[in-house]
Amino acid sequence: MFCLAKGTYSIFGGRTNTGQEGSRALKFREIGEFGFIESIKKDCIASLKEVVKGIGDDCAVFGPYSGRLLLFTTDMLVEDIHFLRDTITPYQLGWKAVAVNLSDIAAMGGRPLFALISLAVPVETDVELVQDVYRGMKAICDHYGVNIVGGDTVASPDALVINVSLIGDVKEGEVVYRSGARPGNRIYITGTLGDSSAGLKILKKEISPPDSTGSYFVRTHNEPRPLVETGRAIATMRLASAMIDVSDGLLSDLRHICKESGVGASLFRSKIPLSFELKALASMANFNPLDLALSGGEDYLLLLTVPEAKAQDLERLSKDDIGSPLYLIGEIGEGRGIRMVNDDGSVEEVEVRGFDHFSPGHHGGT
Amino acid sequence: MFCLAKGTYSIFGGRTNTGQEGSRALKFREIGEFGFIESIKKDCIASLKEVVKGIGDDCAVFGPYSGRLLLFTTDMLVEDIHFLRDTITPYQLGWKAVAVNLSDIAAMGGRPLFALISLAVPVETDVELVQDVYRGMKAICDHYGVNIVGGDTVASPDALVINVSLIGDVKEGEVVYRSGARPGNRIYITGTLGDSSAGLKILKKEISPPDSTGSYFVRTHNEPRPLVETGRAIATMRLASAMIDVSDGLLSDLRHICKESGVGASLFRSKIPLSFELKALASMANFNPLDLALSGGEDYLLLLTVPEAKAQDLERLSKDDIGSPLYLIGEIGEGRGIRMVNDDGSVEEVEVRGFDHFSPGHHGGT
Repeated sequence: MFCLAKGTYSIFGGRTNTGQEGSRALKFREIGEFGFIESIKKDCIASLKEVVKGIGDDCAVFGPYSGRLLLFTTDMLVEDIHFLRDTITPYQLGWKAVAVNLSDIAAMGGRPLFALISLAVPVETDVELVQDVYRGMKAICDHYGVNIVGGDTVASPDALVINVSLIGDVKEGEVVYRSGARPGNRIYITGTLGDSSAGLKILKKEISPPDSTGSYFVRTHNEPRPLVETGRAIATMRLASAMIDVSDGLLSDLRHICKESGVGASLFRSKIPLSFELKALASMANFNPLDLALSGGEDYLLLLTVPEAKAQDLERLSKDDIGSPLYLIGEIGEGRGIRMVNDDGSVEEVEVRGFDHFSPGHHGGT
Repeated sequence: MFCLAKGTYSIFGGRTNTGQEGSRALKFREIGEFGFIESIKKDCIASLKEVVKGIGDDCAVFGPYSGRLLLFTTDMLVEDIHFLRDTITPYQLGWKAVAVNLSDIAAMGGRPLFALISLAVPVETDVELVQDVYRGMKAICDHYGVNIVGGDTVASPDALVINVSLIGDVKEGEVVYRSGARPGNRIYITGTLGDSSAGLKILKKEISPPDSTGSYFVRTHNEPRPLVETGRAIATMRLASAMIDVSDGLLSDLRHICKESGVGASLFRSKIPLSFELKALASMANFNPLDLALSGGEDYLLLLTVPEAKAQDLERLSKDDIGSPLYLIGEIGEGRGIRMVNDDGSVEEVEVRGFDHFSPGHHGGT
């Protein structure tokens, strides 16, 4: 889904249009997704009929119909950009293509219902490969009670392209937007961060783990488990003032909440949850695991803000109650931007980076 | 949208898997869209909740919500398969990408509401080109009262890929499926056939028209006008027993109705409507215009069947009443297959051909 929050600061490696390049046409690489969306989002809403939320959240929201809001989201995965055929199985690819959309529904507190699948397939592709993609899609749809109700299958000159569109619903009073965070709210995350990103680095051979631990990270990266039940539980109990799924990276997605809510945030460095496995890998391979936890992306966890009065209710819940562990990692504040609070009490402003699908060679994000 | 009707007979130029090719893996080119869909459609519906119609019509249908059914459709356009950059303007491309989805909504008698746009863009694409694609999308959405509520914009290694997903709705009693045609029903088409296909042939330089007429055909091909108002009028007056939009070609789409309804059909050769322009072009360029009218495709007209008792009501309506001319072209019958009735009363079985996106070099269909 469109995530407009990043449009106002550069995530495109510095190559932006400075006006110093004469009359040469501006290339897409130079403004990227968010710059482009900023440039076209005007006039997208022709009339306000039934649109509750257009561009700018995990899902579009419309209705209500019989007291329920409908949620509508889409994601496209492109070969050699989002995945490489030799680093993910076709089954996993199908699973993941649906999972990233389910995660958007989860972030609204919604129940996923119906999927449309568009596939562009190079004509020389083995049929069995594409059937395996579909098996992965059906498996995850079956698991989450989603019906595949149609789609479009077309030829492609080169790359395999998968587009999934998903409809879900949520009771009118239970929907959770990005825009409800208020100063004083606590910030929680529903699991450990950075494992997926480590998996991507292993697949890209940037890290070589001992055989026994590599598969954990790769599986986390290739088979995300969208937290639909957790999102539903949080929504049903009306605990969150804002929620988003972490797809671009913790900092980047927290920034989305801050921008949509008009607030700032502080994160507690020592509270960012890291898995035992990630800490061990980082120690062995000599990298800082916090970098992956903050900016890696594709965690598909839920990041939520909770009013102080409800935080006690939330913390009384066990992992069994909501299906995920919950970690308190920070607090919403006045002002703008994200600050990191170190153990010694010192505070530093954080520069936000996230995935940039328009940088050559990247193939990890969604 | 998936159109399963063609799955049972070959439209792929004869290269199907005969089992005589040893252990070589079956390629997608060899089974194509409809063969593939037949192979995966099992188990797509995880549970029947609220699904009124899954795979097998112009749109998926679910609900009802407050007495209205929701319609859900998607179409993907791929560069060098469905379009060439030098034969369609970016504005027209955006227009057309939305139009083909609107036509699916029209064929159910529905009202289009919300669109999600996914774009995969090669990084070296001029930003202005993609903005022009969006301008075309916004123009048609504005014209039909559709809101663009979100989407996904990603990088592509080579081809520009556009996926549009559209939601519409229709009153529960007004929805029109492909499956309601009954023997004795009359068959109508809402305009002249083959003009779009002639436009494609002109763009591919297979036909060279006099300058003054070429633009008519090219515009018909590149700027289809989906018949949303006509579809709504027919649905509101409950005149049609079955309806489909003509995207694959008259014969191919009539075959869809026949298959879903379990009936056969006769077409009256001399009644197939041809534009004055097409007849003149055919005479000049020495081709049979009926071939394009029957199998050309991309007409984006509505093909409908009407019970005899309602045919009088229908024929009493003027073009102003439903927004399109109506031509009586045939009759639904018992049995299977499509027959052509010649002027001398002789009858011949018709072989159905349609677009095959998996044949190399094709770039016309949607």
